[in-house]
Amino acid sequence: MFKAKVYVSLKPTVNDPQGLTIRGALHGLGFDRVNSVRAGKYLEIMVNEEDQARAEAQVDEMCRKVLANPVIETYHFELERVSG
Amino acid sequence: MFKAKVYVSLKPTVNDPQGLTIRGALHGLGFDRVNSVRAGKYLEIMVNEEDQARAEAQVDEMCRKVLANPVIETYHFELERVSG
Repeated sequence: MFKAKVYVSLKPTVNDPQGLTIRGALHGLGFDRVNSVRAGKYLEIMVNEEDQARAEAQVDEMCRKVLANPVIETYHFELERVSG
Repeated sequence: MFKAKVYVSLKPTVNDPQGLTIRGALHGLGFDRVNSVRAGKYLEIMVNEEDQARAEAQVDEMCRKVLANPVIETYHFELERVSG
């Protein structure tokens, strides 16, 4: 069994209204040292697979097909073997 | 300047309909080795601060006050010094 930690973020050139809103809220609360905020997704996926290479290939395919939009987003992930 | 990578996830006991929906979509596409999916947020925040301890204190306060809901969510973050 592997736990995959998947990070999906917008590409740097893509406009991020959610991040701008969060930055505005932070500035409004006095956190004026915040220069920029980029918002993304964090997913933890348990994959019932014992072979690391196969688990990696599956998670990569999930990212490409479902979890990230390759036109505007990038992703990366880490695998961690867990017992169970 | 520091880049803070902030991860916000639901506490393990909290129901996660978004994660269940993503799991359903993955199963529907044939990824039947996926046991569970937990959905969370990933934020990259640039903090214009040269002192690491002060940057850390500020990001922690942002997490508690704005970025995470401490009733149902947990968070952790990493700081990385960047030039600029």
